[in-house]
Amino acid sequence: MQNAVILINTEKGQVKAVAERLADIEGVSEVYSTCGRYDLVAIARTRDFESLATLVTERLNLVEGIRETETLNALQVHSRHDLETMFSVGW
Amino acid sequence: MQNAVILINTEKGQVKAVAERLADIEGVSEVYSTCGRYDLVAIARTRDFESLATLVTERLNLVEGIRETETLNALQVHSRHDLETMFSVGW
Amino acid sequence: MQNAVILINTEKGQVKAVAERLADIEGVSEVYSTCGRYDLVAIARTRDFESLATLVTERLNLVEGIRETETLNALQVHSRHDLETMFSVGW
Amino acid sequence: MQNAVILINTEKGQVKAVAERLADIEGVSEVYSTCGRYDLVAIARTRDFESLATLVTERLNLVEGIRETETLNALQVHSRHDLETMFSVGW
Amino acid sequence: MQNAVILINTEKGQVKAVAERLADIEGVSEVYSTCGRYDLVAIARTRDFESLATLVTERLNLVEGIRETETLNALQVHSRHDLETMFSVGW
Amino acid sequence: MQNAVILINTEKGQVKAVAERLADIEGVSEVYSTCGRYDLVAIARTRDFESLATLVTERLNLVEGIRETETLNALQVHSRHDLETMFSVGW
Amino acid sequence: MQNAVILINTEKGQVKAVAERLADIEGVSEVYSTCGRYDLVAIARTRDFESLATLVTERLNLVEGIRETETLNALQVHSRHDLETMFSVGW
Amino acid sequence: MQNAVILINTEKGQVKAVAERLADIEGVSEVYSTCGRYDLVAIARTRDFESLATLVTERLNLVEGIRETETLNALQVHSRHDLETMFSVGW
Amino acid sequence: MQNAVILINTEKGQVKAVAERLADIEGVSEVYSTCGRYDLVAIARTRDFESLATLVTERLNLVEGIRETETLNALQVHSRHDLETMFSVGW
Amino acid sequence: MQNAVILINTEKGQVKAVAERLADIEGVSEVYSTCGRYDLVAIARTRDFESLATLVTERLNLVEGIRETETLNALQVHSRHDLETMFSVGW
Repeated sequence: MQNAVILINTEKGQVKAVAERLADIEGVSEVYSTCGRYDLVAIARTRDFESLATLVTERLNLVEGIRETETLNALQVHSRHDLETMFSVGW
Repeated sequence: MQNAVILINTEKGQVKAVAERLADIEGVSEVYSTCGRYDLVAIARTRDFESLATLVTERLNLVEGIRETETLNALQVHSRHDLETMFSVGW
Repeated sequence: MQNAVILINTEKGQVKAVAERLADIEGVSEVYSTCGRYDLVAIARTRDFESLATLVTERLNLVEGIRETETLNALQVHSRHDLETMFSVGW
Repeated sequence: MQNAVILINTEKGQVKAVAERLADIEGVSEVYSTCGRYDLVAIARTRDFESLATLVTERLNLVEGIRETETLNALQVHSRHDLETMFSVGW
Repeated sequence: MQNAVILINTEKGQVKAVAERLADIEGVSEVYSTCGRYDLVAIARTRDFESLATLVTERLNLVEGIRETETLNALQVHSRHDLETMFSVGW
Repeated sequence: MQNAVILINTEKGQVKAVAERLADIEGVSEVYSTCGRYDLVAIARTRDFESLATLVTERLNLVEGIRETETLNALQVHSRHDLETMFSVGW
Repeated sequence: MQNAVILINTEKGQVKAVAERLADIEGVSEVYSTCGRYDLVAIARTRDFESLATLVTERLNLVEGIRETETLNALQVHSRHDLETMFSVGW
Repeated sequence: MQNAVILINTEKGQVKAVAERLADIEGVSEVYSTCGRYDLVAIARTRDFESLATLVTERLNLVEGIRETETLNALQVHSRHDLETMFSVGW
Repeated sequence: MQNAVILINTEKGQVKAVAERLADIEGVSEVYSTCGRYDLVAIARTRDFESLATLVTERLNLVEGIRETETLNALQVHSRHDLETMFSVGW
Repeated sequence: MQNAVILINTEKGQVKAVAERLADIEGVSEVYSTCGRYDLVAIARTRDFESLATLVTERLNLVEGIRETETLNALQVHSRHDLETMFSVGW
C-alpha cells in the first residue's frame, strides 16, 4: 500500500465542498478540515505507487475549488496498526 | 474521536529514530517519513480533545531529536471509512 | 469552553466592516483590529470543540470581505481569570 | 484599556513552562497554547498604552525560554462584552 | 505624542501618487519612497493613541493605489531631538 | 539631507540596550521600539549620501546586540515639515 | 554539454499538458511531475551555454500553462555515467 | 557616480521585451536575464544620487511588463576597475 | 525505475565534497552544483519505490556536510529518451 | 564573456572585510555594499562559463566571513556598452 499526505488550500468559501468532493475519490481515505496554514489535509492510500501517481496527477486535478495542493508522499510508515488490512485498499 | 495531523522536522540524521519514538506514543496512530518540506507527518487519534491537548503539549515535547512541529488539529472529518471503529481509540 | 485565536487579513478597505460582521457572530467573543502582519484578530469562545469546528468551517466562511484566515485552536489555557464564568458561553 | 495579542514561539520543550511564567505577569490576561505556527498566544490587557509598552519592552524580555515574540497591538476593539469591566484592569 | 512607522507597497506605477496622497493626510508627518522590499515608508505622529488608531483604520483605508500596509506602532522612542516640540502635533 | 529607515532585530533581551546605543550615534535621529515583525526602527538623517553610507557600513556594524538590519534608503521625501531645518543635520 | 534543472509551477489543472509540451522542446531531456512544492521539474541538456540561454529565455517563454519557472543552471556535474555520450546532445 | 542593482520579475512571457525596454533607458548601464529567483537584473549607473532617485521612482515606473522590482542601492563600491571613467556617466 | 530530484544545501565550504560523496552512493545517478537558491541538485534513479525510500531515509542521512535536503519524488516521467535502458538501474 | 550577479550576506560585522576580499579575486569585477535584504552584490565577469563555474564553486568558497551566497548566472546581456572590451577579461 502507498500512502500520501496532501496539504490543500481551497478557493474562498469552498472548504466544505472541496472536502466532500475529495472524500468521494477512490484512493482518498480521509479528508480533514484543519486549523492552521492549510484548509484541508487528505490522506491517500492506494494499492501501489502508480495508482498514487495517477490519483495525484490526473484526478485531484479535476476537483473544483482547489487553489493549491502539496503532496507529501510517504517513504516509510511506522504504525502499531496493520493499516494495510484495515484500509483493504482495492484500488 | 479527535484527529490531528502533525508536521515535523527533525534534527539532522534523526528521521528514522524520531519516527520510531513517535510511533510508540499512545495516541499516535501512524507516522510517515515523507518527501517534500517536512521530514515526518504523524497522525494523532485520541478519545477527545483534552487527550489530544495533553499529547501535543506534554508528550511530543519530550521526544528527542525533534526540531520543529506544527499541529493541524482536525475540525471535521470526511471519510468513507468508519475511522472511530477501525482505530478503536481507547486512550 | 473552547477558545481559538483567529488571524485574519481582509480585502482592501474592508477592515472595519469585516470586524463588525465578525463581532456579530455567536461564538466570536472579541475582534481586534491590529498593527502588524494581520488586519484583525478574533477570539472565539464556544461551549465545546464541535461548536468551534462549526463556527470556523461554516460561519466564518460566509463573512464577506475576508481574504485569508488562520485559526490557532487553543490546546490549553493559562489565566488568573475565570474565563468560563466571565464569558458564560451559552452557545 | 489597551489590548494586545502576542504571538510567541518558545525554546524546545519550554511551551508549558513559558505559558505559566507569562500568566504570572501583571497585565497578561490569558495565555493559550495553540495549534499551528505559533506555540503560544498571550493576550495583554493594560490600563493604558504606556503600561503596555512597558510590559512588552521590559517584562516579556526577562521571561526565560522565549525564542521569538511578535506583538499585535490592538487599534480598536469590537465586542459584545464589556471587556473593560470584566477584566477590571488595575495595572 | 504617538509615533508609528507604516511600511507600504503600492499598485504598480502608483508610488509617487500614493506618496503625495499620504503626505496630505493629517497625522502623516513624512513619507519616504525607498529602496528595498517596500515602496514607501510613512511616519505617522499623532497626539495620542486613539488618533493613531483612527488614522490607520479609517483614513489610510481610503487612499487609492495602496496594495499592502503594515503598521509598526512605536512602543518607546529614543531620540536626542525633542520630537514632541519639533512636530507640534495638534491633531 | 539624506534619510534612511533602518529595520532592526536584536539579540534576545537586548531591545532597550540596542535602542540606546543606536540613539547615541551621530546621524541617527530617532529610534523606535515597535510592535510587529521588527524590534526597532531607526531613522538616520545625514548631510549627504556618503555620510549615510559610512554610517550604515561602518558604525551600525559596531553596535553590540544587533542580529539583523535592513536599510531602506529614502529616494524621495514628501512632507509638510521642513525636515532639513528641523533636524539641522550637521554631520 | 550544459545541464540545467528547471523548477516549474503550472496553471491549475495544467500539470500533465505542460509536461507534454515541455518534453517536446528540443533541449529538454526529461520532465518529471513531482511531489512537493513544485509541480514539474525539467532537465535541460544542451550543446553549450548559449543554446541553454536561448532555450530558457526564448522557448520556455512560449509554453502555455506555465505560472512560474526557476532555472538552476548546473555549474559542475558529478556522475558515474557518461552523460555526454548517453544523451548525445545534437542541438 | 551612483550605482544600483535592480532585481526584476516580469509579466509572463515578457522577459526579453522588458530587458530591451530597460536597456534603452538613460542611466541603465546593463540588463542581464538571469537564472534563479529573479528574471532580470539591471545595473543603474547615474551621475549622482538624485538622478538615481528619479530613474527609479519616475522612469522604471513607466516600463510595461514589469511585475516587481527591488532596488539595491550601492552604498560603497570596491573594484579594480575605474568604473567612473569606463562608464563615463553623463546623465 | 523510480526517479527523484533532491534539492540540497550544504554546510559552508562543503559544496564540492558533498557532491562527490553523493555521486558515490548507489542509486544517485547525477549530482549538479547549481546557481540559485540550492547548492546541489541530485537525481536519484532506483529500481523501485522501496529502494528510493531506503536511499533517502537511510543513506543520504549519513552523508557529512549536508544542511538541508528536500526530495521531489517523480510521479510520472515524460522523456524522448529511454531512461530505463540508458541508466540500466540494477540497484 | 560570462557574467554573473552574486547576492551575498556576510557574518555580522564583516561586510567591509568580505567586500575587500571578494574584490581581490580574479574574475570578480565589482563588489557593491548595498541597502536592502543583501549585504553585498558582486559582479563576476569571466572569459567563459567554465571559469565562472570554477570561480563560484572553488574560490568564493574559501572567502572568510560569508554566510550565504546566491549566484544569478546571466543568460543574456543587454547593454549599450561594449562590456567585453571595457572589462577586457583575460582570465
